Amino acid sequence: MFEVAELGHKVSKAEYLEKVPKLRTQLLDLQRQLSIEDCSVIVLISGVDGGGKGDVISCLNEWLDPRFMRTNAYDSPTDEERDRPEFWRFWRTMPPKGTIGIYVGSWYSEPIAQRVFNKTDDAQLQKQLNHINQLEKELADDGTLIIKCWLHLKKDQQKKRLKQLEDNPDTAWQVTDRDKKHLKKYDSFVAVAEKVLKVSSSAQNPWLIIEGGDYRYSSLMVGQQLRDQLQLHLECRQQEQANKQQRFTLPDVGGHQLNVLDALDLGLQLNKKTYNEQLNYYQGKLNQLVRLAQAKKISSVLVFEGWDAGGKGGAIRRLTHALDARNYEVISVAAPTDEERKQHYLWRFWRHMPRAGRVTIYDRSWYGRTLVERVEGFASQDEWMRAYSEITHFEEALTEHGIVLLKFWLHIDPDEQLKRFKEREQISYKQHKITEEDYRNRNRWEDYSLAVNDMVARTSTQAAKWTLVEANDKRYARIKVLKTYCDKLEATLAAL
Amino acid sequence: MFEVAELGHKVSKAEYLEKVPKLRTQLLDLQRQLSIEDCSVIVLISGVDGGGKGDVISCLNEWLDPRFMRTNAYDSPTDEERDRPEFWRFWRTMPPKGTIGIYVGSWYSEPIAQRVFNKTDDAQLQKQLNHINQLEKELADDGTLIIKCWLHLKKDQQKKRLKQLEDNPDTAWQVTDRDKKHLKKYDSFVAVAEKVLKVSSSAQNPWLIIEGGDYRYSSLMVGQQLRDQLQLHLECRQQEQANKQQRFTLPDVGGHQLNVLDALDLGLQLNKKTYNEQLNYYQGKLNQLVRLAQAKKISSVLVFEGWDAGGKGGAIRRLTHALDARNYEVISVAAPTDEERKQHYLWRFWRHMPRAGRVTIYDRSWYGRTLVERVEGFASQDEWMRAYSEITHFEEALTEHGIVLLKFWLHIDPDEQLKRFKEREQISYKQHKITEEDYRNRNRWEDYSLAVNDMVARTSTQAAKWTLVEANDKRYARIKVLKTYCDKLEATLAAL
Repeated sequence: MFEVAELGHKVSKAEYLEKVPKLRTQLLDLQRQLSIEDCSVIVLISGVDGGGKGDVISCLNEWLDPRFMRTNAYDSPTDEERDRPEFWRFWRTMPPKGTIGIYVGSWYSEPIAQRVFNKTDDAQLQKQLNHINQLEKELADDGTLIIKCWLHLKKDQQKKRLKQLEDNPDTAWQVTDRDKKHLKKYDSFVAVAEKVLKVSSSAQNPWLIIEGGDYRYSSLMVGQQLRDQLQLHLECRQQEQANKQQRFTLPDVGGHQLNVLDALDLGLQLNKKTYNEQLNYYQGKLNQLVRLAQAKKISSVLVFEGWDAGGKGGAIRRLTHALDARNYEVISVAAPTDEERKQHYLWRFWRHMPRAGRVTIYDRSWYGRTLVERVEGFASQDEWMRAYSEITHFEEALTEHGIVLLKFWLHIDPDEQLKRFKEREQISYKQHKITEEDYRNRNRWEDYSLAVNDMVARTSTQAAKWTLVEANDKRYARIKVLKTYCDKLEATLAAL
Repeated sequence: MFEVAELGHKVSKAEYLEKVPKLRTQLLDLQRQLSIEDCSVIVLISGVDGGGKGDVISCLNEWLDPRFMRTNAYDSPTDEERDRPEFWRFWRTMPPKGTIGIYVGSWYSEPIAQRVFNKTDDAQLQKQLNHINQLEKELADDGTLIIKCWLHLKKDQQKKRLKQLEDNPDTAWQVTDRDKKHLKKYDSFVAVAEKVLKVSSSAQNPWLIIEGGDYRYSSLMVGQQLRDQLQLHLECRQQEQANKQQRFTLPDVGGHQLNVLDALDLGLQLNKKTYNEQLNYYQGKLNQLVRLAQAKKISSVLVFEGWDAGGKGGAIRRLTHALDARNYEVISVAAPTDEERKQHYLWRFWRHMPRAGRVTIYDRSWYGRTLVERVEGFASQDEWMRAYSEITHFEEALTEHGIVLLKFWLHIDPDEQLKRFKEREQISYKQHKITEEDYRNRNRWEDYSLAVNDMVARTSTQAAKWTLVEANDKRYARIKVLKTYCDKLEATLAAL
């Protein structure tokens, strides 16, 4: 597939000087259009060493309006990055909507290098590519335009180019030992690259292979590609907005569907004495387990969802009581900030990813997309249906990184809820928890039940199972949460 | 000064259980008031090891509404933190307005430990304390309430407490080798702490010394202190808002003041041939110098300010042309996002602090406060007057960290500006740069000149001098910028 980029493409200085001003004007125009749109652009500049990636990026930097773009270069991961799932370093620098992110070195660099140097095998590479495809699909679904450019050079050209760079004292620094090591691996590098490019080219996000010997040619090609794709993308966006349509009809289950929540025995309870004994026992146990986990750098992420007044706060407090305050964080999910609104909806959860060894507790979570946003119509059906797979992949990234992930749904019935609302209104430091909205939400109990049922059906995976907690009795619920976390930690530590 | 915290203060369980619910209600109430205010709260929990910092923080975590608070724990700096000025790690986690940040371990921890273990001397400690005082003053000026709590224990109590913790398998983990090492240094630790607490207690931000042997006592003390200070703070804020007044009258200079800009010779120019020669020469030289600097992990921060159409963009492009695109970033300063608006105005510049070895170019900068915000009245006189000292301290933090800092003002006269506006309107890819606002700003030329003069007078320091660039001739200006940067880098490298 690289033959097309071994033909000696060149652009004369005259042609270049003629074309560039027009291209710049067009790019600036498109950037201005983009800046008010609800989507972003990612340009990946990859390729062989000496293929002129730096030259292309310099040109883009000079042509584009710096207010709406940013260049991201990736080196070896920092210790803060190594302490988190692999893609965190990319999520943290995603271009906000309305802007262009230029990437030199990207999510492809490490997988290719690892395979070339036999640190991974074909199966592992394929798995990495699956993750990449999923990431790009999620971004594309969210309206992000991804342009992937591969700068290619023939082997003898690469050798010549590196020698040229090395011989000139002004450019010798560009040639590193790593480059020389890579040159020896040229054949194997190209073979792996070909495979990667093939697998990761989709109709929506294909690779563009560009000959890298002449910077005028390659810069123009990349610049024109950016112009044309962006133009098309903006046109298509407008059409899509105009005829937005559902792509899937939900089954009409009438009253016939059994709900996973209805199967729970809300009569389960604990008496005060047993509760106090077990609370002491499990809090002590948890404290020890969490310290062991911390020593092994195993983080925990605990998600709490449930009905209003279901007892999330109380369960969380019984849990944090057993932890060292320096080592956990409770994140109450609130409305997104405007920086968060300018990103994929999962971005705000990626950005607060804890470092290794810590416990992060979410009081409500990314499941808002499939619950309140679905029921209240804040997300379109397409968006919340898509969210199930986006979430399972997100959670897979956590569990594959070795994070212990638990998800609790605290279930009560409508009568119990009403009783608790009334109680709250009597206790001074709980009054602020009750609003009109809580009463309004009660009217949509059936819709929420259905949403919970679907959520469990679609996101309770082997690696990240939902724990449904019978919570009409607070004592029973709290102990179940503590015990579930203890059991999971114990099993994880035993399996090390 | 610690005697008052060696008297054996205790709170009975009964008293504690009686007082806590009321305190919680009050704290939650105040938090709700705070959440709509334009200010934030910082609570530092420091003190001797075994003083029960963890217990106090656990209590605060349980009492406060987690939506409006966050606990920050500091361990050894990460490599991303070591690559940046010392206070970056604190700036990055500052509580947004409307919220409370609880700090366990803070800007005091390292300076105290370093002095105790003789890694610094008294003079160095004093310097660190000056920086801390400045930081706290800036935060307080910005409306932040800072509550500093020191948990004290007598030496034999500390010994006993550590032994108790160690003997209980559930708590032994809390005692680290570091604690034992510190215990041996108790006397010297207390001596240094006393000194630090004395120097860093101001009428606005005093230390509160609390006996740490009984968690009920210390938690109640901290909680009540937080309640009382916050209440007072909110009341005072309202009064201050009501009778906001200027605290300094600007001198009425009439037409008599000479302006530093008027002293520039705008006739300076270069012919095309000399320009091209020098451009090549300095770009080549700069490329080499920047690579040397990168190898030594020396970063550069270049600030460009100047009249509209003064030629900032062109000068920046001539400069970046000599750099590796992977190693620099151009930051165009735009309006702050809402996350940025919820912080001290310098926060958005701290947050983008480059890692060691990189070049960051600001197209407009933190000086906006003293220029456009002053002239257009977006900042009050008190705010922009204060900004001069805030900025010089900020820049001192950069230069003390070894960053090469250069600040350019590109100066043209009104006729030249008008000529350039007209030219821009003719060139397709420059049209977007001209707006009505540019013409409007011309009417305020005198006000801006005065602001520039004051800015130079108050912020051109030995470590961070302003370079005023005669820019009526673009060629002359571009070479002056390049040469200035080269000279500065050369001198810095020679001095290593």
